[in-house]
Amino acid sequence: MKIEAVDFFYLSMPEILDIGDGSQDALLVRLRAGGFEGWGECEAAPLVSIASWICPMSHSACKPVCDSVLGQRLESTADIPRIGERVRRSSFDLLQADHTLSGIDIAMWDLLGKKTGRPVYELLGYPRAYPKTPYASALFGDDAQATLNKAREYAARGYAAVKFGWGPFGTGNLRDDEDQLHAAREGLGPDRILLVDAGTVWIDRVDEALRRLPALRECRATWLEEPFVSGALDAYARLARQSDPVRLAGGEGAHNDYMAKNMLDLAGLGFIQIDTGRIGGITPAKQVADYADARGVVFVNHTFTTHLALCASLQPFAGLERHQLCEYPVEPKPLGRELTAATLLPDHNGQIHLPQSPGLGIAPDPGAIRRYLVDVEIRAKGQVLYRTPEV
Amino acid sequence: MKIEAVDFFYLSMPEILDIGDGSQDALLVRLRAGGFEGWGECEAAPLVSIASWICPMSHSACKPVCDSVLGQRLESTADIPRIGERVRRSSFDLLQADHTLSGIDIAMWDLLGKKTGRPVYELLGYPRAYPKTPYASALFGDDAQATLNKAREYAARGYAAVKFGWGPFGTGNLRDDEDQLHAAREGLGPDRILLVDAGTVWIDRVDEALRRLPALRECRATWLEEPFVSGALDAYARLARQSDPVRLAGGEGAHNDYMAKNMLDLAGLGFIQIDTGRIGGITPAKQVADYADARGVVFVNHTFTTHLALCASLQPFAGLERHQLCEYPVEPKPLGRELTAATLLPDHNGQIHLPQSPGLGIAPDPGAIRRYLVDVEIRAKGQVLYRTPEV
Repeated sequence: MKIEAVDFFYLSMPEILDIGDGSQDALLVRLRAGGFEGWGECEAAPLVSIASWICPMSHSACKPVCDSVLGQRLESTADIPRIGERVRRSSFDLLQADHTLSGIDIAMWDLLGKKTGRPVYELLGYPRAYPKTPYASALFGDDAQATLNKAREYAARGYAAVKFGWGPFGTGNLRDDEDQLHAAREGLGPDRILLVDAGTVWIDRVDEALRRLPALRECRATWLEEPFVSGALDAYARLARQSDPVRLAGGEGAHNDYMAKNMLDLAGLGFIQIDTGRIGGITPAKQVADYADARGVVFVNHTFTTHLALCASLQPFAGLERHQLCEYPVEPKPLGRELTAATLLPDHNGQIHLPQSPGLGIAPDPGAIRRYLVDVEIRAKGQVLYRTPEV
Repeated sequence: MKIEAVDFFYLSMPEILDIGDGSQDALLVRLRAGGFEGWGECEAAPLVSIASWICPMSHSACKPVCDSVLGQRLESTADIPRIGERVRRSSFDLLQADHTLSGIDIAMWDLLGKKTGRPVYELLGYPRAYPKTPYASALFGDDAQATLNKAREYAARGYAAVKFGWGPFGTGNLRDDEDQLHAAREGLGPDRILLVDAGTVWIDRVDEALRRLPALRECRATWLEEPFVSGALDAYARLARQSDPVRLAGGEGAHNDYMAKNMLDLAGLGFIQIDTGRIGGITPAKQVADYADARGVVFVNHTFTTHLALCASLQPFAGLERHQLCEYPVEPKPLGRELTAATLLPDHNGQIHLPQSPGLGIAPDPGAIRRYLVDVEIRAKGQVLYRTPEV
């Protein structure tokens, strides 16, 4: 069987706010082959990823992603990395292609799961999927009081771990950040896991991160996430040598497995965070999970969007029992909440379980797609290259 | 003075061939501020870079590039890295943004050069621009005989150095590659510099590169370029330890200065090749040139397109006398040849000199732009986001 059709659906909230909330839009991928259908999701910038799917060829190493996917054989899981390698090779000079490939790769795994009647984690070689401990992933409040209130709310809702990130953290003075951290710890109480996400705010300035370390230690933050941009390996390594017992987390910006492996080898991370919607899909994410596991670094998903994306991001490390935490979006916009009829809710022990049904086991709701669908048309060289497809 | 307008012009040959020739299309950037005009060029995938300029915001760290550029103050050269940092921060999750920024950064340098009446290399702090020795940059022939003929032609045209890359090299059997290398050396004669570009064909498979080393040594190749993808730092380092006297070259895939610096620190390169049309423009390229110079690695431009791109790519290392080689496209398509009325031709000693006129000192020809201009329209959310502008 061959890949007959791939359709991209750009969904968006009616209004996009200028906040660090990635659940405000989404790019869905529907892939069809041999009478089966798979779904995937690409992280961020839907219009740009659509353009990289259908742009005219620039030269032999800068082809539209569609050239490497449509018509390809998709019979077994070995075809998925083969197609991924075709995309990377033929779109070598097309930077956005890695993000576009991500949703396609996820959809291929979903489709083959449905075809074989098995969940994706089994196709990845895991005998079972272990439950994960979700950390409530939230933005810092605008001030310490707002963060305190949020922390109390997530504690009351039963989360054993909570992460605060972005918002004003790291952008103002030290005292404000200290207040934020203490408010977070106070709201959570003494026993819950506190995680802190700086959202790359210090770029590569190690001293700025060092100034926050005493407060991070006092508040017993388990990790400091993304103090720096992903490429600043040396800055990560220098901070890691001084941050104990606070561990560093990072990797969401990795758009291929080499970037993630270089971080694992050189950045001194305690946790590697991979977004299957960016790194090229489930295939490279699974390679990174295995690589991290062999090196004693904990793999964690990066997910701030829909439960389709969440379900895809959990597959690569579903069978790794020691890698227990999972990022869990707790304040998504209605688009993020409504996209899938089924959702992955914490059980009575507060644990998240992957569906055992074929493929990802979770699919977008056509009504939700229609509700948030953005009308797009791209014309070039006298042709309509893309027009929003029918659901 | 503020940035009042930025226009993108997508140019293309009528027919794009499936060969490794990057001169078949181009994305020009025209930037206007305070009555001045600057020009730049982004490498590859014009439609995708245009989309990243005008796409709707996804969230606070995934904004269209235009949001970080239009209306910004552009008075002095310190504004250029400031604007670049704004783009990186606000389009952090928009992978293509680095390529889009590249042309904008180049145009800002060109504009400030024109405003101050000084060539860009002077604005970068270089008292003078040293002449460079161009290497004729060509594709391997379809077979060894074709490569022999090309090598003879470039030798006859007086080039002291010639590079062959892509085409069939590395994709077939070892014997064919050996024949290609010996044909190249035979055609060049004993004294000219031979450079070889594998175009990342072996991805990260060190053994495939090692099998070609005896022939590369016999034919006295000065460098082996891009045996692997840019992220495969460990594969580069392992090969570098065994490749002497053949040095490794790479880096054209770097889309920020961190990637390039990591290669310089870890990949064992003898030469770092930077494309100002990809790395984010002249600003990060200059940083990489300084970093390479301090570490004894030779900086070389990567350019396979127009003389506007060539002129931009030579600025970052113009004042570094010891970094002598420059890539020089010798078989561009008519679009590449015709885009600028002025071109950088070798002098009677075969050397390339940068213009001493203000800015880049070379500008696109309006007639050529009109001749190759592609008609594009992008609509989303009920609005026309982009339409091909007037020249």
